[in-house]
Amino acid sequence: MNKAEVKPLSSAYRLLNPGSVVLVSVGDGTRDNLFPVTWNTPVRQDPPMVAIVSGKRHFSYPLIVERGEFGLNVLQASLVDAVLGCGSTSGRDVEDKFARFGLTREKAGIIRPPLVEEAVASLECRVCQVVDLGSSAILVAQVVRALASTEHFREGQWRFDSGLELLHHLSGSRFCVTVSEITGRKPG
Amino acid sequence: MNKAEVKPLSSAYRLLNPGSVVLVSVGDGTRDNLFPVTWNTPVRQDPPMVAIVSGKRHFSYPLIVERGEFGLNVLQASLVDAVLGCGSTSGRDVEDKFARFGLTREKAGIIRPPLVEEAVASLECRVCQVVDLGSSAILVAQVVRALASTEHFREGQWRFDSGLELLHHLSGSRFCVTVSEITGRKPG
Repeated sequence: MNKAEVKPLSSAYRLLNPGSVVLVSVGDGTRDNLFPVTWNTPVRQDPPMVAIVSGKRHFSYPLIVERGEFGLNVLQASLVDAVLGCGSTSGRDVEDKFARFGLTREKAGIIRPPLVEEAVASLECRVCQVVDLGSSAILVAQVVRALASTEHFREGQWRFDSGLELLHHLSGSRFCVTVSEITGRKPG
Repeated sequence: MNKAEVKPLSSAYRLLNPGSVVLVSVGDGTRDNLFPVTWNTPVRQDPPMVAIVSGKRHFSYPLIVERGEFGLNVLQASLVDAVLGCGSTSGRDVEDKFARFGLTREKAGIIRPPLVEEAVASLECRVCQVVDLGSSAILVAQVVRALASTEHFREGQWRFDSGLELLHHLSGSRFCVTVSEITGRKPG
């Protein structure tokens, strides 16, 4: 997919704005893994920061916390089976989720973990704060680089005029898709 | 709108799962306010917890932090102008945003701030942790009660068979709408 670096990086928060499910990529250069995260949000525009929630007992959790880096890969509806596959298997059992679910590694520009080539956007993140919630944690991270589709993300904004279908998780195997755009009217 | 209390409350996180923009209601019984928040996510299922980001200089911020309570009101696309209106005016200038933007106060069951009657779902929240981000903060809160439309949220899940249109923020006046549902296939 044709992608360009998102500049200024202060518009990178818009990549997560509509609340899509993302595929988190982690790794140290020898071993990597992928898992979907529905619980994510931008938390700051400039410097751009995001937050994701991760269970502490997940295979990937120590890979994130030890290296302090992860990728957030935003996906279209066509990849729904890959998202569900990555979410219903553990990195303990599946050595290579990229190969297993038909995804391609893309070398990141700054961080060590690979990105997902098929993603419509990817954010490279460095953990800056961990908020303990008991069995899980909120990982607050700075976005150090972002890539987005030149077709679907233009002038720092998602564009729905070329068939963009962002994927949102409902429950279990159920997802919904944002396909249409509306414009609100500001009060006069 | 016909609503029922969401039970068990451990399914309340699904109300926020697709990443919709929410209208936050705050107040102490004498003065209240409404503002939209795109940066929100569930963070825990049981006990149900959510996180929202709020600027510290916002009119509503002290109202939230002093009282420790707020409502999260999930809206449909038909309320896009009200969302934009609440977001482009300050509680310092508009005494009654409910009246100004055609919304109706609904008495909450547990918290002091009012809920929005026109919302398709409302979560009553109590702040339990504030994560400082400088000029803004992540407010982590426990959901103590939730209400949802009996037509659109059934058996603990959003249902798109009756014209549900959830609203997601893109940038400025631009929003997108989730209208369709797809089912992923788990790996065999």
